[in-house]
Amino acid sequence: MQEFIGKDFLLTNETAKRLYHEHAAGMPIFDYHCHLSEKEIERDEPFEDFFMLWLGGDHYKWRLMRNFGIDERFITGDASHKEKFEAYVCALERAYGNPLYHWSHMELRAYFGIEERICTANADAVWEKANGYIRSHRLSPASLIAGSNVRTVCTTNEIFDDLRIFGRIREKGYPFRVLPTFRADKVMNIDDPAFAAHLGKLCALTGELRSLDELEEAIVLRVGQFRAAGAVAADIALQRVYPPLPRKEAAQAFAAARRGEPVSEAQAAAYKSFVTQTVMRACAAKGLAVQLHIGAMRNNNSRMFARLGADTGYDSIDDGVGISALARLMDVLDGAGELPKTVLFNLNPAWNLPLTTLAGCFQDASARGKIQFGPAWWFLDHLDGIRAQLDALAATGHIATFIGMLTDSRSFLSYPRHHYFRRILCDWLGRKAEAGEIGYDFDAFAAVVRDICYNNAAAYFGADT
Amino acid sequence: MQEFIGKDFLLTNETAKRLYHEHAAGMPIFDYHCHLSEKEIERDEPFEDFFMLWLGGDHYKWRLMRNFGIDERFITGDASHKEKFEAYVCALERAYGNPLYHWSHMELRAYFGIEERICTANADAVWEKANGYIRSHRLSPASLIAGSNVRTVCTTNEIFDDLRIFGRIREKGYPFRVLPTFRADKVMNIDDPAFAAHLGKLCALTGELRSLDELEEAIVLRVGQFRAAGAVAADIALQRVYPPLPRKEAAQAFAAARRGEPVSEAQAAAYKSFVTQTVMRACAAKGLAVQLHIGAMRNNNSRMFARLGADTGYDSIDDGVGISALARLMDVLDGAGELPKTVLFNLNPAWNLPLTTLAGCFQDASARGKIQFGPAWWFLDHLDGIRAQLDALAATGHIATFIGMLTDSRSFLSYPRHHYFRRILCDWLGRKAEAGEIGYDFDAFAAVVRDICYNNAAAYFGADT
Amino acid sequence: MQEFIGKDFLLTNETAKRLYHEHAAGMPIFDYHCHLSEKEIERDEPFEDFFMLWLGGDHYKWRLMRNFGIDERFITGDASHKEKFEAYVCALERAYGNPLYHWSHMELRAYFGIEERICTANADAVWEKANGYIRSHRLSPASLIAGSNVRTVCTTNEIFDDLRIFGRIREKGYPFRVLPTFRADKVMNIDDPAFAAHLGKLCALTGELRSLDELEEAIVLRVGQFRAAGAVAADIALQRVYPPLPRKEAAQAFAAARRGEPVSEAQAAAYKSFVTQTVMRACAAKGLAVQLHIGAMRNNNSRMFARLGADTGYDSIDDGVGISALARLMDVLDGAGELPKTVLFNLNPAWNLPLTTLAGCFQDASARGKIQFGPAWWFLDHLDGIRAQLDALAATGHIATFIGMLTDSRSFLSYPRHHYFRRILCDWLGRKAEAGEIGYDFDAFAAVVRDICYNNAAAYFGADT
Repeated sequence: MQEFIGKDFLLTNETAKRLYHEHAAGMPIFDYHCHLSEKEIERDEPFEDFFMLWLGGDHYKWRLMRNFGIDERFITGDASHKEKFEAYVCALERAYGNPLYHWSHMELRAYFGIEERICTANADAVWEKANGYIRSHRLSPASLIAGSNVRTVCTTNEIFDDLRIFGRIREKGYPFRVLPTFRADKVMNIDDPAFAAHLGKLCALTGELRSLDELEEAIVLRVGQFRAAGAVAADIALQRVYPPLPRKEAAQAFAAARRGEPVSEAQAAAYKSFVTQTVMRACAAKGLAVQLHIGAMRNNNSRMFARLGADTGYDSIDDGVGISALARLMDVLDGAGELPKTVLFNLNPAWNLPLTTLAGCFQDASARGKIQFGPAWWFLDHLDGIRAQLDALAATGHIATFIGMLTDSRSFLSYPRHHYFRRILCDWLGRKAEAGEIGYDFDAFAAVVRDICYNNAAAYFGADT
Repeated sequence: MQEFIGKDFLLTNETAKRLYHEHAAGMPIFDYHCHLSEKEIERDEPFEDFFMLWLGGDHYKWRLMRNFGIDERFITGDASHKEKFEAYVCALERAYGNPLYHWSHMELRAYFGIEERICTANADAVWEKANGYIRSHRLSPASLIAGSNVRTVCTTNEIFDDLRIFGRIREKGYPFRVLPTFRADKVMNIDDPAFAAHLGKLCALTGELRSLDELEEAIVLRVGQFRAAGAVAADIALQRVYPPLPRKEAAQAFAAARRGEPVSEAQAAAYKSFVTQTVMRACAAKGLAVQLHIGAMRNNNSRMFARLGADTGYDSIDDGVGISALARLMDVLDGAGELPKTVLFNLNPAWNLPLTTLAGCFQDASARGKIQFGPAWWFLDHLDGIRAQLDALAATGHIATFIGMLTDSRSFLSYPRHHYFRRILCDWLGRKAEAGEIGYDFDAFAAVVRDICYNNAAAYFGADT
Repeated sequence: MQEFIGKDFLLTNETAKRLYHEHAAGMPIFDYHCHLSEKEIERDEPFEDFFMLWLGGDHYKWRLMRNFGIDERFITGDASHKEKFEAYVCALERAYGNPLYHWSHMELRAYFGIEERICTANADAVWEKANGYIRSHRLSPASLIAGSNVRTVCTTNEIFDDLRIFGRIREKGYPFRVLPTFRADKVMNIDDPAFAAHLGKLCALTGELRSLDELEEAIVLRVGQFRAAGAVAADIALQRVYPPLPRKEAAQAFAAARRGEPVSEAQAAAYKSFVTQTVMRACAAKGLAVQLHIGAMRNNNSRMFARLGADTGYDSIDDGVGISALARLMDVLDGAGELPKTVLFNLNPAWNLPLTTLAGCFQDASARGKIQFGPAWWFLDHLDGIRAQLDALAATGHIATFIGMLTDSRSFLSYPRHHYFRRILCDWLGRKAEAGEIGYDFDAFAAVVRDICYNNAAAYFGADT
């Protein structure tokens, strides 16, 4: 019987234990994609209570509560903070096999020294202890980030966001960097009713955009400004990848949308394809990596979308990624010498091998692991998902070039997810070593682990000197 | 070396053994979907011989024989009962890793006390012993069901079936319920040559159906009559889900089909979508759950279909489920307050996560686990399929709300499949507990196991008071 | 701690060890699909050096090097043989979890007695030792094949290839057969710019082909000639399977292509469907098996294709197989009594079950395992891929009819892949046996293992008497 989420949690062999405790545990964190608010990091105000810190903005947790049949009043409704906390504990208590079960316990241990199994019986005590700790330690965004050994935080920003805040954060002298990430989705999703409003915000920065050519220039300009503000990556979210399509149709779509006229599905696809390519080309030119987040089917519940908006726990996984479109997109960019470093994120293990093998078709010596098969993300950020990602990457790519984990989180408590991943990684490697599947060389194993934990990401995205 | 299909079959840890023997083994069975014949249950005649009971209608077993290269004469042809039994034993003997290998042995143990490994060498003895047992115990449908600790059997019935039989069965005082399940597939599959004949049977009950409006009324009427006859669920089989489509096209399809004219593929899709929605709406109104069986590609072999008809072992798994269509269907119904409790059955592990995550977008507090990710079904009802289903549900849904296993069977001997599932479930949970992945609380584990074995299904579908 | 790639590599239980060492290890090899050059086998010249033997034509290895970020100069460029070898060692050293890591070490052990872990530190020594061995033993194609206990090698040949070479090889008295495999892909891919040239080569053998009817006759003729030259199988590579389509459109496509006019996508599909069916029908008539290699998306990188051509490591896995098209294709052929023995090869585990279950719809007693679910191939030829293939086949087909592994290789050193597979197979079976999931009968296990290693393939394809 192993100790519950103890010192050797998930470490089932001696090699894994040594790798984790002697090497992985102490490596810093390069969180190259998250949804933390740079405004909150700048303000750095102490958290109001444990609810705000733990549950206030975390739609992963809301989803678990809904799956357990909890009334929305106790999730996003008008119940008190403590009632909502209790409702979450109730949903969590028997959520065996759910990553939130692990994360939640790891978070309480790492940040509050609470080592018990959370259950309805001790919910009161946990609530008091955590709140007491928050007050006594004046926990705030920056203190949590710094205390988690984070070196770099890449937030996610819209193309029209004000970037001066990143300069102000830099001046605060935190022991970590906060870098913007370029995201043009809001001016890419031409079929979104809010498109005109979003485009207006971009125009406010760049002047009116009367043609696709001008939009292209604006995107290139903004990518450059993001780079100047410290960005090392852009992010693109695509339900499915669009193949290269005629620029003329993209221009028609843009013209129609500017006139407030409807845009056909084919035109919308051409436009999105154009924006995707433009961002990727600009990133290649400026040295930014592109993070392609593929396969999420978002906002499935219109009723709840009308009530709560996006990013509230009503997303799911599509049943395709458009692999041949992605292949053609990458081929066109590669042929023009304009394929940037690219991270392919995947939401369904069924596409792991199509994506790892496609990545292998566009590698070159300009960067080790130039085309990355991204870590197990969102719905896959759990034991099985992480193991499947490692297996697929190792079997058909090269494990030693992997840039490792991210949080993708909206919560300042989510850095234990990096350690969750690191434990699984060390265990994965140790098992193979002890089974005689790898020639035993502990120093080499340790080097690979340290690289995947931090060094590879730092080399790939660039670290301060 | 573990004992072959012994007391602790599939139970690899002490926690699992205690969970199974002390809790799971004794729970009753709520078999919420099967293909048993209510007529045979009413008649309750003793079985003729072991062939009729074990092999007579079980196309799973026929399939295994074909996969082993056995001539059709010994499967559905004119060979004797004993020859067919011997041919099955021959195919089974080395079918290592096949669930039929486990089921067949479990069935012989549970019902006939035969504990040996079945092989050609002892086939004669098994045949004699089983036949002797059938005769001496006068094994019949009701005695087998009652002896298997079954509380509820939900058969599968056509929209036009005579429901009075369920009242007669009730009066027989069996220690289990037999409930009809509403199925409108025969009037949904408008592209089936037999559609007109099927529709005629419905009209014989409801009067002529001259328009889509009248068909809609008829469906609603019959759902209500099924409910009155005890039904707790409807069943819909879809190769792929159809999205909501224009009612007008559905009406055109229905009109054309009534006139004996051909129906275009688009019209057929609109019609099927309409029937699907109508059934789901009616079920929501009447409190029935809907079981969506998605992904089977049926009757692939025309030659054998002409000879043997449907449900004879010539089906396979499609390579898609139409996840975005399903999302839109559920969204439309949810938006109208007409989304019933729904069980999503899946045939390919590749779609496990798309379906579990979509289910999570439509939960509400009206029922715990309102949208169920259904158990590993048909081609997935085996060790790997069951484990993958549990993993996916646990990681992205909530394991404690799961309504557990069904048989989906045409055989009165198939209840050991519930125990097969229960052993795997207990082992799954025990492994996590003993690995320190779950905080150890045996009583809580036991409660979850009992819930998944029976209580959740009883609460979800409704049990007699 | 297990010994690294030692005697009991991958054998985790006693049953597995006995099965492998006493039965599997000594079975001969029937390599029913590879890309070895019959010309090199005929010439049988000693290899120039270790580079030519190990790395010269193996795009699997090139791919690993690219995935590690190695410059193309050291892969296919103008670096020296030794520099390229060193670059490969550098990429291999930490490629934990990659099948090349295992294969490469197994190859060095099996053919050169080199038992160390390969690393940059001993690269020089390995290079010297291997080259010394090649020179002193005058290693040549035939000596390697014969020394690997290979009984039959099936090469891959174009429809227009000169088959007399196979007669000349036969006369050389090697202790193994070399048989041609019929492949019509070059006259099937009507959308390939080189189609006219390829067709011209066929016409040079058959006379001008003025119509689809004449093409059909030519294909049938050539299949017969291949059969006469010893062929036991044909091979068809399809990114996705095409359903049966109108012959008239295929004829239009052929006519247009002959006139040098463009062929529409729909016409091309009809033409490819026609050629696929024609080959399958001809094989059914002549008793050849058909190997359908489904799901590869080839030559994704146009820049590198222009430089290096096909089969250089720029292929990947498609995200679909066209399962319903395959079902219709098989149904049409089966209905006409023209469905040959067929091996369905799959590149993505997501399609394992759709394919195994479809195979089960077209079995008959003409051959045990007539429709084979092929072994884990190319990107799946690794631990996880092989285990997933065995699991899927066992659970939904019948493991005992399986024809086992192939190399699919361009290298004369790749026969250890058969032993890699055999170890995994023995371990897979032994685990089930020792876990009590199979009734223990060692002799029966051994018979199944020997059958899968060699006997089944020999019976399926036909062995010399």
